[in-house]
Amino acid sequence: MTASPASVPLARPRRLSILGATGSIGQSTEAVILGAQGVFETVAVAGGRDAAALARVARSLGAKFAAIAEPSAYGALKGELAGTGIKVGAGPEALKEAACMEADLVIGAIAGAAGVVPTYAAVEAGRDVALANKECLVCAGEPFMRKAREKGVRILPMDSEHNAIFQALGGENPKRIEKMWLTASGGPFRSWSAERIAAATPEQALAHPNWAMGPKVTVDSASLMNKGLELIEALHIFGVEAHKLDVLVHPQSIVHGLVSFADGAVTAGMAVPDMKVPIAHCLGWPDRVPTAARRLDLAEIGSLTFEKPDFERFPALRVAMDALAAGGAMPTILNAANEVMVAAFLDRKITFNDIARNVEAVCEEFEKEGAARTPPDVESALAVDHIVRERSRARLAGLGR
Amino acid sequence: MTASPASVPLARPRRLSILGATGSIGQSTEAVILGAQGVFETVAVAGGRDAAALARVARSLGAKFAAIAEPSAYGALKGELAGTGIKVGAGPEALKEAACMEADLVIGAIAGAAGVVPTYAAVEAGRDVALANKECLVCAGEPFMRKAREKGVRILPMDSEHNAIFQALGGENPKRIEKMWLTASGGPFRSWSAERIAAATPEQALAHPNWAMGPKVTVDSASLMNKGLELIEALHIFGVEAHKLDVLVHPQSIVHGLVSFADGAVTAGMAVPDMKVPIAHCLGWPDRVPTAARRLDLAEIGSLTFEKPDFERFPALRVAMDALAAGGAMPTILNAANEVMVAAFLDRKITFNDIARNVEAVCEEFEKEGAARTPPDVESALAVDHIVRERSRARLAGLGR
Repeated sequence: MTASPASVPLARPRRLSILGATGSIGQSTEAVILGAQGVFETVAVAGGRDAAALARVARSLGAKFAAIAEPSAYGALKGELAGTGIKVGAGPEALKEAACMEADLVIGAIAGAAGVVPTYAAVEAGRDVALANKECLVCAGEPFMRKAREKGVRILPMDSEHNAIFQALGGENPKRIEKMWLTASGGPFRSWSAERIAAATPEQALAHPNWAMGPKVTVDSASLMNKGLELIEALHIFGVEAHKLDVLVHPQSIVHGLVSFADGAVTAGMAVPDMKVPIAHCLGWPDRVPTAARRLDLAEIGSLTFEKPDFERFPALRVAMDALAAGGAMPTILNAANEVMVAAFLDRKITFNDIARNVEAVCEEFEKEGAARTPPDVESALAVDHIVRERSRARLAGLGR
Repeated sequence: MTASPASVPLARPRRLSILGATGSIGQSTEAVILGAQGVFETVAVAGGRDAAALARVARSLGAKFAAIAEPSAYGALKGELAGTGIKVGAGPEALKEAACMEADLVIGAIAGAAGVVPTYAAVEAGRDVALANKECLVCAGEPFMRKAREKGVRILPMDSEHNAIFQALGGENPKRIEKMWLTASGGPFRSWSAERIAAATPEQALAHPNWAMGPKVTVDSASLMNKGLELIEALHIFGVEAHKLDVLVHPQSIVHGLVSFADGAVTAGMAVPDMKVPIAHCLGWPDRVPTAARRLDLAEIGSLTFEKPDFERFPALRVAMDALAAGGAMPTILNAANEVMVAAFLDRKITFNDIARNVEAVCEEFEKEGAARTPPDVESALAVDHIVRERSRARLAGLGR
């Protein structure tokens, strides 16, 4: 992924297809598109199961096609969009259709493993992708990026941390990178003792200080597992070696990512914590489009602080960094096990500390079995994901007995 | 000035000519060249009056030609370099010769107005210039940059602030910039009361907390005039409008410059305060060369603070920003008057506060006379500079009576 030096004005509306249009990223994307009047044209929107919400965004953006993942929601969506002229589809094939429509950029913002197949379909169809879905890279990073290279497709990172690094890198050769830091707010437990963290409730884990996100990501932010998963994403997206990747705890969430070079220079990407900023950057790239995001005022903020992450109190980050260093299928295994364990924590079946403990145990189990080879394709990665989830659930059932 | 996207390895040694090889920038440049074994070839070195120091650096870098500005130092330099095969010259023509030799990059690091003519000669000869001399842009910015554009010459900014912004910009179109901040350490008087500043001695003004620089620049850092002059440089180097330029006081001198864009994103250039970093960036650009500069460790530093500059206690910055906004010859006038007033302060002829007060008075005097049109060429700019210095000295003589 290299940046073009020129920021050329867009000659015609840039055609977008939004996968995950009803989620939190989808809503911010809608705000950016509406704010940049006339710069974008929405060809398709796709959502999970909320027909009313999907119909609303389809009308709001004047989409030509609306696809809903849940087959049984077809009738409801059709009813909602009756008389608008917007085409309607439902089920996995409809999602793929939305992903593959003629467009200049596909927004890959379906959360979780469900996002992998449609986003991969967009890449296979030769569409540039603005990527917010973690699993494409964490679960299937190698085959996903291989396909993108093969198709000459650009993967623009839409996560605030990776986008900040993309901006900090400018057009620079990633080979010249000495180190790359993703920042972590430290989450709600940053200053808590190990004992307090061990007894943390789902409500406490869900009280993130800076970002409003879904529950799974918010728990991952509290455990710092999220930052570990983001390191794995960074490895694939920027093509840097694992040992160059690191985490800095930065409670204000203003500096999102940093890169250092052989000469000792460091560049950083900053912004107020508002997803509209990285979204607008991806949508407008290589030009810029205006947003109504609050402007960064460093004098008003006064102080930016940084600290090393504490691997003792936040073992999930250590477990993730071990998987990052091991490579192969370990990131895929880590991610699947973590998803099951976080769900169990939110269901009050395990403690907060049990998340990392169980994820590590599952990783070790698969490693012992020698099942950690890199999945050769996306299907294999998803198969590994499936097996690990089953094994993780079985483990939990065993613990519950 | 736009950055190339590709960081191509250098195919053959990059040929350098160093104007100002014996000063502090020259010494750091020497360290970078020696550290990057074989990447650079020094064709010429030029210095002011210290024959022994110039001979030493000429030998150290294996230069082909050494030029000394002071004509009477010819014999001494010739003696020092006897038997080395290094060609020797003295006087203004020798400096021009060094500037115009066949080279890939000319380091413009002669301090003060003396640097303008040889650096301009390099531009006229079509040489790319890594610029550390302020006066080329502050005194003669318009004609200097016009000539650079005409000759298709790249001006790479070597000041830490401008270089940080150059890095933060990547290859981005400067037209998309919303704001640009240069940071200021705040100097030794940052937390002093107005009364204490008024009574400051040269010794106190020369005690800069973060950077070791020459006395003139150090006094300018204490008054914040230096930051005002750097804003004028930024206007010319990046082609941004005056109203987009601003200053942030940042005592740790880690973040050197920042740029914000229409989408709300901010990119920043950082490094420990070590001139080897921006020098290496210019010398290696668009690739990177390694340096032994200390690496930035934000967790160790812990906290970066930012505040708005105080124009009441530091009126020199206000005076400079007025000249920046006025344009025309006002920056030329400001700079010349300031140089005379700083010298008078160092000679204990005027107080610290008299510097800004007198500079402002001189600027107003010329403005009233309608003498503030943009100098059409470098010669005219230098003529204005000369007249302003004479008038400033006359003013001081008048005050002394």
